[in-house]
Amino acid sequence: MSTNLSAVLYGKDDLRMEAVPVKEPKEGEVLVSVRAGGVCHTDVHMLDHGKIGNFDFQAAPTVIGHELSGVVSKVGPGVANVKPGDRIAVDSVLSCGSCSQCKRGRLNTCLNVVYVGISASVNGGLARYTVIPAKAAYVLPDSVDFEEGAFTEPLAVCVNAVNRSNIALGDTVLVLGAGPIGLLTLQVARARGAANVCVADINSDRLQLAKKLGASHTVLFSTDEADARVSAQKILEQVGEADSALECTGAELCIQVAVYAVRAGGCVTVVGIGAEHMNLPITECVLKEVDVRGAAANSFCYPAAIKLMETGQVKVKPIISHRFLLDELPHAIGLVRNRQCNKVMIDCSKSPQK
Amino acid sequence: MSTNLSAVLYGKDDLRMEAVPVKEPKEGEVLVSVRAGGVCHTDVHMLDHGKIGNFDFQAAPTVIGHELSGVVSKVGPGVANVKPGDRIAVDSVLSCGSCSQCKRGRLNTCLNVVYVGISASVNGGLARYTVIPAKAAYVLPDSVDFEEGAFTEPLAVCVNAVNRSNIALGDTVLVLGAGPIGLLTLQVARARGAANVCVADINSDRLQLAKKLGASHTVLFSTDEADARVSAQKILEQVGEADSALECTGAELCIQVAVYAVRAGGCVTVVGIGAEHMNLPITECVLKEVDVRGAAANSFCYPAAIKLMETGQVKVKPIISHRFLLDELPHAIGLVRNRQCNKVMIDCSKSPQK
Amino acid sequence: MSTNLSAVLYGKDDLRMEAVPVKEPKEGEVLVSVRAGGVCHTDVHMLDHGKIGNFDFQAAPTVIGHELSGVVSKVGPGVANVKPGDRIAVDSVLSCGSCSQCKRGRLNTCLNVVYVGISASVNGGLARYTVIPAKAAYVLPDSVDFEEGAFTEPLAVCVNAVNRSNIALGDTVLVLGAGPIGLLTLQVARARGAANVCVADINSDRLQLAKKLGASHTVLFSTDEADARVSAQKILEQVGEADSALECTGAELCIQVAVYAVRAGGCVTVVGIGAEHMNLPITECVLKEVDVRGAAANSFCYPAAIKLMETGQVKVKPIISHRFLLDELPHAIGLVRNRQCNKVMIDCSKSPQK
Amino acid sequence: MSTNLSAVLYGKDDLRMEAVPVKEPKEGEVLVSVRAGGVCHTDVHMLDHGKIGNFDFQAAPTVIGHELSGVVSKVGPGVANVKPGDRIAVDSVLSCGSCSQCKRGRLNTCLNVVYVGISASVNGGLARYTVIPAKAAYVLPDSVDFEEGAFTEPLAVCVNAVNRSNIALGDTVLVLGAGPIGLLTLQVARARGAANVCVADINSDRLQLAKKLGASHTVLFSTDEADARVSAQKILEQVGEADSALECTGAELCIQVAVYAVRAGGCVTVVGIGAEHMNLPITECVLKEVDVRGAAANSFCYPAAIKLMETGQVKVKPIISHRFLLDELPHAIGLVRNRQCNKVMIDCSKSPQK
Repeated sequence: MSTNLSAVLYGKDDLRMEAVPVKEPKEGEVLVSVRAGGVCHTDVHMLDHGKIGNFDFQAAPTVIGHELSGVVSKVGPGVANVKPGDRIAVDSVLSCGSCSQCKRGRLNTCLNVVYVGISASVNGGLARYTVIPAKAAYVLPDSVDFEEGAFTEPLAVCVNAVNRSNIALGDTVLVLGAGPIGLLTLQVARARGAANVCVADINSDRLQLAKKLGASHTVLFSTDEADARVSAQKILEQVGEADSALECTGAELCIQVAVYAVRAGGCVTVVGIGAEHMNLPITECVLKEVDVRGAAANSFCYPAAIKLMETGQVKVKPIISHRFLLDELPHAIGLVRNRQCNKVMIDCSKSPQK
Repeated sequence: MSTNLSAVLYGKDDLRMEAVPVKEPKEGEVLVSVRAGGVCHTDVHMLDHGKIGNFDFQAAPTVIGHELSGVVSKVGPGVANVKPGDRIAVDSVLSCGSCSQCKRGRLNTCLNVVYVGISASVNGGLARYTVIPAKAAYVLPDSVDFEEGAFTEPLAVCVNAVNRSNIALGDTVLVLGAGPIGLLTLQVARARGAANVCVADINSDRLQLAKKLGASHTVLFSTDEADARVSAQKILEQVGEADSALECTGAELCIQVAVYAVRAGGCVTVVGIGAEHMNLPITECVLKEVDVRGAAANSFCYPAAIKLMETGQVKVKPIISHRFLLDELPHAIGLVRNRQCNKVMIDCSKSPQK
Repeated sequence: MSTNLSAVLYGKDDLRMEAVPVKEPKEGEVLVSVRAGGVCHTDVHMLDHGKIGNFDFQAAPTVIGHELSGVVSKVGPGVANVKPGDRIAVDSVLSCGSCSQCKRGRLNTCLNVVYVGISASVNGGLARYTVIPAKAAYVLPDSVDFEEGAFTEPLAVCVNAVNRSNIALGDTVLVLGAGPIGLLTLQVARARGAANVCVADINSDRLQLAKKLGASHTVLFSTDEADARVSAQKILEQVGEADSALECTGAELCIQVAVYAVRAGGCVTVVGIGAEHMNLPITECVLKEVDVRGAAANSFCYPAAIKLMETGQVKVKPIISHRFLLDELPHAIGLVRNRQCNKVMIDCSKSPQK
Repeated sequence: MSTNLSAVLYGKDDLRMEAVPVKEPKEGEVLVSVRAGGVCHTDVHMLDHGKIGNFDFQAAPTVIGHELSGVVSKVGPGVANVKPGDRIAVDSVLSCGSCSQCKRGRLNTCLNVVYVGISASVNGGLARYTVIPAKAAYVLPDSVDFEEGAFTEPLAVCVNAVNRSNIALGDTVLVLGAGPIGLLTLQVARARGAANVCVADINSDRLQLAKKLGASHTVLFSTDEADARVSAQKILEQVGEADSALECTGAELCIQVAVYAVRAGGCVTVVGIGAEHMNLPITECVLKEVDVRGAAANSFCYPAAIKLMETGQVKVKPIISHRFLLDELPHAIGLVRNRQCNKVMIDCSKSPQK
């Protein structure tokens, strides 16, 4: 346990790969030997801005990494839900369990929420070892490997979004964006009973992957798509009106397309984050009684996410486009920043995983 | 029945008060002796543009008036739900009962919807007599008078909006706008169990009326309100975060205020119609998991609307600011256009009603 | 079209296979050349009692058969949704579209509901030809054959039941009974996102079929199962607490088992019909806040049912245990009565179908 | 603080009024100077059986009393939500915040739930002083007095039940039983928007009180009511089909009446607890698609309950039939046992409250 290589964010453009002491797990904590960690656009945002929301990394350097799996190495006093040797995924959303949001069962909007690998108070998983609260640990079944385990976090985000969108059996669903979140959402929508899922993106390779992962229809947008009604028409011609649309790009045009492409009474769930303000065809929303619903992080979706992988309803491996060792992380983040990749997976184990 | 004075819309700026033949009710139809009719901003819009949605009044002149009550004068063959002499309100939303939206129980977004007094195919109620489908007729209890009966339509719109917004017992609700729709929505929100209802408007007289009708808090906005966050702060200071907000103005700033003023997991229901596109703080919606829901017309809300008046849970009379006879309608519409009034009620009976 | 062999029910124990004149389709009707018809326990009940609900077959002889597919042979005036040559399934639930239940979107509890092949007013499909309202016809995609088409009705019943039971992604679902309804419900629950589906029955052959059709677990009950808590324990040991249970047998013990086997806040949906009254562990329901929900027929579930077969999410063919020609129907009904079969399918075409 | 008279339950028929040491509040705890405490049938059950559920009072003597209000006397370390001098109500349901039920927002079915005044681990409020977890304390507004504060618990039970029953604006609601729970449920149903509430009971005095508290209709059952269909007919004649029924008696006949009296698609929520098993008209439930839903204790309903009293939507004082001092508790319990009373309220303060 001597050298604990970790990705410590010290502020804007200041990510350092350095050895960090291995901490002892205190009451209710576990020490995790990290095996796999995913890189996410949120990590890029944190590095490029030196802060996110209220968290300022210049003030409080933090080990990043919120998509992680590993092996429980040691448990602190009072830990009952996991034991050394357990293979686990880590829920990045730590809710308090006692605020008004938690009492309503909306853990992701907990008034005292802390995020593993984002909030300064809890180090993340782009490290050899990290200490997390035991309640964040979910045991992985044997058939779910470490890379899949590291996908539990983004998959849980998609489960949460699909739950928010009330998909019904036989529905036609539109997914905007075929990046990792879009490709997972597509599969979760199918698992939830959608008969047709149409995926739209500007990248034809991604759309081919969407086809392999269950898209019934794909629509290639050009990068200079400008008129949302015209773009929506391309979808309507392919697949007819959608019952639900899930926006996974953060692009204003895509939300507009979604509103035009759903049927009256349909639901547009927004997962992607882009500009702070966007122009919405609001009269269309009113007259068609469309719901536009935000979906953020996840609320108690880890059990379902793990089962979706265990049963094979969702396949995450084909979404991995690149694999790196932990010390190559800065290069990996660059790839994600330039969107020259799909999911980038980091092997955090000391010796490369089998 | 010789002279049937009626308000016929022939196109843009071309509303004529003229005698129209009294039609015989055919199968499934009833002839109504109209007693009271409300004037609505939709009427102003129709007159000022000569069309609305797909309906072009130049091509098909139409008797306007979609908020009406009256007495059944004669019934056509096969009518069983009402009989001559019945006092009735008329549901302006005529759904087909067989399309996919109707089969889902969403009558207001019926794919074949026809509106009384708006669609050319069914004349409205700003007339002495009008013929409507019997299924649009709802019998009024004795304790609900004709003016109240004419309020059933806008009240049903508010019942529909409140139903869409999932208000729970003890909730704090924000209503933006203290015009007729806002003042009805306020009362329906109270009837549904809201503990606090805060009403915001730019007119202090309207806010005083809101107080009388049950608002627990009021917030006076200035006409040059510019920053939605700052405006929202005024509400938050008064009443704290809202569980739900209902937008009844059609102003972009008000929707933005609503998004900032609701709690995480809250719901913003949009009833007001204004610009086709509006700028929305979408990242706030995503991170707080806010729902923005459109609400249009009403779906099977007449029985509830009538009961709300019958039980006294909603009081509509104080919302009437002006009363006119039918031949004064053009003047009445002018008042509504200039927003120098609250609800304007037209007496459509030949001899003024008691 | 000369000989129209039909199964006419004249009263208790009085089913006659006889030639019936081929009717001309009137306005809004279509003449169907029936191809496949399923036999259901409801048919047995009708024959054994001579009536069902308010329908008395002695007073009004009726062509039975409510699970049917065929080819549109001729259409009456005003029919737009199908044309001669269309391959169709027939929805047996004919709702009025205008009562309070229809307006709420609950077509199956329509106050004026009529059932094809059950109500005397609409002949059923165990015949060479039958005339049905056009609105009951749903076009089948090429990939769904006639036998599958005849399964649309029972499958829609299961879609309705699963919709009632609010199954969520990752759920553990218990299905009681592995007859046709149980085996379809199992598959619909999987299609809706259940991770584990445990099926219980007293017949091990049926359970093997359940395994093939996607059951993750099976539990063999003995015919002398007596204590519901003990029986529930067998399930709990296999699969843990269920989130939802769907009762497809009509046996009192099975409903009791369902209540004991679901978690707090779980849902027991009852599809099976047996004794009019049953003993329920009601204190358990109260303390665990369990919902016991009835599910009957279907409400606008044909589109979803057809898509589930089209996409392969549900496989119905393996559920067919016997196939007969129309003139062998009395023998087929005997098999169903004695439960010596799974689904019994009748070839209603004049010359046997390919 | 020297003498802390408390009602300690030592087992079956063994309730002792004795002085108990005043404990110091530990971390997260508060010492409450109790002012008012309600007596409930649960208290009678505990005394008559010496145990309830898994709790055995012979093994662990407990201070009873789960409906209490008082003044915070002292706070332990780390308590932030209340301070000495605060007037509070105490939520008797202590959920863990971290089990699967809590994470779903169903606190009342928490897998680790502890009840104040019922579970041995937390003493109740029929005492001069008691120590409770700070998180159970809800501050009362000035306009809600101590007796009303002691009603927060049963009122929250009714809020929970009404939430479970999905009452909509304009609904007709049936409440079975006009005891304290029935009379509160009646008012909560009205507050939630029910247009008509019909209350049934066997006691005409109680029904008169129901009328005063907002019942639109009342139905007097005789004590030898035997046929549920006939009894239901009495309700149907008065008020027509109910949209929802809430069972507050625990009598089998009443649940049966509820099933027969609700419309298709209606909801029967069961709050009352009686025999472990009851005979239910299950075929009626299936064919009408009725939901029978259990409702137990409350899940985060204290804020709403307090607001309902603060706004005057619910009036609890008229439900109090008897008032006693703490040392008269044994006599008070006898009254409740014999049902010769409505709510019995105990003044727990050393000197009688004003």
